Amino acid sequence: MRVSEVTRLTKGEQTRSRIVAAASEAFERDGFGGAGLSSILDASGAPRGSLYFHFPGGKEQLAVAAIEAALAELLPVIKEMLRGARTASHGVIRMLRLLSDRLEASGFEIGCPLCSIVSSSASAPESVRRAAAKAVGTIEHSLAAHFIDHGRSGRDAKRLATVVLSTIEGAILLARVQRRRDPLDRVAKALPQLLLDEP
Amino acid sequence: MRVSEVTRLTKGEQTRSRIVAAASEAFERDGFGGAGLSSILDASGAPRGSLYFHFPGGKEQLAVAAIEAALAELLPVIKEMLRGARTASHGVIRMLRLLSDRLEASGFEIGCPLCSIVSSSASAPESVRRAAAKAVGTIEHSLAAHFIDHGRSGRDAKRLATVVLSTIEGAILLARVQRRRDPLDRVAKALPQLLLDEP
Repeated sequence: MRVSEVTRLTKGEQTRSRIVAAASEAFERDGFGGAGLSSILDASGAPRGSLYFHFPGGKEQLAVAAIEAALAELLPVIKEMLRGARTASHGVIRMLRLLSDRLEASGFEIGCPLCSIVSSSASAPESVRRAAAKAVGTIEHSLAAHFIDHGRSGRDAKRLATVVLSTIEGAILLARVQRRRDPLDRVAKALPQLLLDEP
Repeated sequence: MRVSEVTRLTKGEQTRSRIVAAASEAFERDGFGGAGLSSILDASGAPRGSLYFHFPGGKEQLAVAAIEAALAELLPVIKEMLRGARTASHGVIRMLRLLSDRLEASGFEIGCPLCSIVSSSASAPESVRRAAAKAVGTIEHSLAAHFIDHGRSGRDAKRLATVVLSTIEGAILLARVQRRRDPLDRVAKALPQLLLDEP
């Protein structure tokens, strides 16, 4: 969000977006179950009352807002990485590089704005799981559109989008656990085979 | 574990393994941060004192034990699935089917005995992360051996093992979030391309 936009927000909206930003980071680091409201509040610098004012539904409502905000942040970046790529895999490799750099810069704590909360949402309240499923579906849709642009049939493109997104999510998971970017680099190397040579 | 083996365990060992089994399930469902000691204890039916007797290091020590137990359970199954496979992808597809069936049978709550705890261990205490990284490395090693058996060079095999494990972990994650087995089925369909046709 640009400064010019921030200044147009009311004070209440600014507080709300500070809370959401702190929540996104906490959920990304610790998953839904692990993140605590108190530490989110501390990180945001907002007064306790404002948390319940903006999010009367508590942690559940905050997690849904964090997922939606993370998707809104991530989607234009993904589209930018895919746009104008020479080949189908070239665009995805650009995405992977960005994620690897982000991971490495954070000491392998922050992978992508969505991964941890998505991976922990399977056991979270239904509204959180549904928001995560919707976010995943939106990203799959962008990837599928990219593969269609590069000559795949709709059906093939949808299938490949799921496989590629699975591979990326899994590689981020492994990279975080092993504290090294190898998994993402290896996936990048395997992508042309997976994406281009298929019949 | 067979009944004959269970009866050879002392009462203390039986209690310990009941606690570890309950912990594995809780960590698999809720991740490291989300799982609670009280509910693990309730599920195990063991007295509170025995938790601290067997695991003076608390949740951290219990998580390491759960990871080690999950790996000990999973590894022979993986080896069995890969053994005697006609092709490299055929063995991996057998693994995927087993995981999909397990997922579906649990209402998409329980994926593989290791995934959730591995995915949440990146932000868990260092000993837990290290145990998860070791477990991941052991599974990668089994996969790489399988690919070597099917004619790959050591270097290729290691790379493919990471990519395939990433893809499987990511597909389980997506399947849990979306509550459907599609991601695993799509990965199964993409594997021959990824594994066989590579130069």
